[in-house]
Amino acid sequence: MTRTVYVNGEYLPETEATVSIFDRGFLMADGVYEVTTVLDGKLIDFDGHAKRLSRSLNELEMKEPCTQDELLEIHRKLVEANNVTEGLVYLQVTRGAADRDFAYPKDAEPTLVLFTQEKVLAQSPVAKTGISVISIPDIRWGRRDIKTVQLLYPSMGKMAAKAAGADDAWMVEDGSVTEGTSNNAYIVKDGVIITRNLSNDILHGITRAAVLRFAQEAQMQVEERPFTIEEAKAADEAFVTSATTFVMPVVKIDDAAIGTGEVGPIASRLREIYIEESRKAAL
Amino acid sequence: MTRTVYVNGEYLPETEATVSIFDRGFLMADGVYEVTTVLDGKLIDFDGHAKRLSRSLNELEMKEPCTQDELLEIHRKLVEANNVTEGLVYLQVTRGAADRDFAYPKDAEPTLVLFTQEKVLAQSPVAKTGISVISIPDIRWGRRDIKTVQLLYPSMGKMAAKAAGADDAWMVEDGSVTEGTSNNAYIVKDGVIITRNLSNDILHGITRAAVLRFAQEAQMQVEERPFTIEEAKAADEAFVTSATTFVMPVVKIDDAAIGTGEVGPIASRLREIYIEESRKAAL
Repeated sequence: MTRTVYVNGEYLPETEATVSIFDRGFLMADGVYEVTTVLDGKLIDFDGHAKRLSRSLNELEMKEPCTQDELLEIHRKLVEANNVTEGLVYLQVTRGAADRDFAYPKDAEPTLVLFTQEKVLAQSPVAKTGISVISIPDIRWGRRDIKTVQLLYPSMGKMAAKAAGADDAWMVEDGSVTEGTSNNAYIVKDGVIITRNLSNDILHGITRAAVLRFAQEAQMQVEERPFTIEEAKAADEAFVTSATTFVMPVVKIDDAAIGTGEVGPIASRLREIYIEESRKAAL
Repeated sequence: MTRTVYVNGEYLPETEATVSIFDRGFLMADGVYEVTTVLDGKLIDFDGHAKRLSRSLNELEMKEPCTQDELLEIHRKLVEANNVTEGLVYLQVTRGAADRDFAYPKDAEPTLVLFTQEKVLAQSPVAKTGISVISIPDIRWGRRDIKTVQLLYPSMGKMAAKAAGADDAWMVEDGSVTEGTSNNAYIVKDGVIITRNLSNDILHGITRAAVLRFAQEAQMQVEERPFTIEEAKAADEAFVTSATTFVMPVVKIDDAAIGTGEVGPIASRLREIYIEESRKAAL
């Protein structure tokens, strides 16, 4: 089955969806992206993703490719065209195509690409047993708050994890955990949920914001500060959050079992709340 | 006039040259590149660029798209098809197209793209007056020895330089200059040419290697070590090297004139030698 995807105003079969070799996304990683989750055929936190997209574009002095309403319409059309009940919509904006030059082109129009992926998310079997992570040095660039397509190192980190028999990697800089390869990282100690505070060092996760809000509404205690890998190994629970994994328990870090080595109650509860609340607010 | 470019085995008009939106170069900056200079219709240091390409591919566990002889043939065909007397051939290899996933795809074939650009190089008027640079923090990822397409920050640096009325930017990390946005950086003090030693912190410039060899053959003294911006501002001369700028004098750093504020004798002499020797060895 061939997906229908979106490229610069056109809905196309995925096999015919191309961009110019002069696209700055291809030549210079001069592009940003968002991933919006689909549950029950509806979009989770579309508004949050659209706002973060605008922020990324603004930080890079890139043009908005269209209005937020138009973006929403494209998302919905793709979900419908591809009959996506559960999965995601991937969106990428680049500075557009122009002959290669380090200086930004004056008159290029942004490139806008969207496609869907079907995935089992809410009933993910992995969420019941939890994932294992390894720790690796964080050698990414310094503006991780901008959601750029410079994903080579996270991709290398994922492969390093697989090679070590683990599921993912947590990145460590100056002694503290920054985040996972494509998710925010958390530990729980004595009932307190600890996650790194926002800065240019980490992505400002849309799921992170929602989960912290739900945690506080459920009277859970939250502390936003950096933590070390040693602290994480000695924690009662650990988990990650992202648009497509929601709240995913982490049961092993390097060679250390976390807490009992099984999925903990706070991660489980937060996952339930997040999925329940997200379904309610989906559009 | 429309250039002929090369994409995965085909020679195409540039307007028809595309890659899949699922190409990992486009989605994840999972690609590497080389730029080979053309002088008198011939290639400068093709062998050096081909070897560095192999190294980059190897570091990222990417497949070679073809043999070095085949690469040479494509370079030559493009130079001929586009009647390039002076300019460059740009080459990019990516891990290929596959549905988006942080893990490397198992069976994707590498994407190979090449195109030419015509430029005035040997007689560049800028080389006679020199360029000005600003200093900016180096916030790039930690593997700058791999020539990846993650060029967003160098591109931002170039724009910061333009905004400040300068030509380029030198990046500074832990107090020392790493390199320029797309070139290696040098200063000259009391007759000694000083440039940062090779490591993962900087690109292993093909032009850098040639220039240092020519300098030593001309009995000039070379010191490979990090230097600070303060040291650079107090230097007698400064310059950068890259495939397409050869040896380019730097006459101003931030607000400080370097030496006399004019192009110095060592940079001038090295530029002459480099161009002369490169012409001789071109193929």
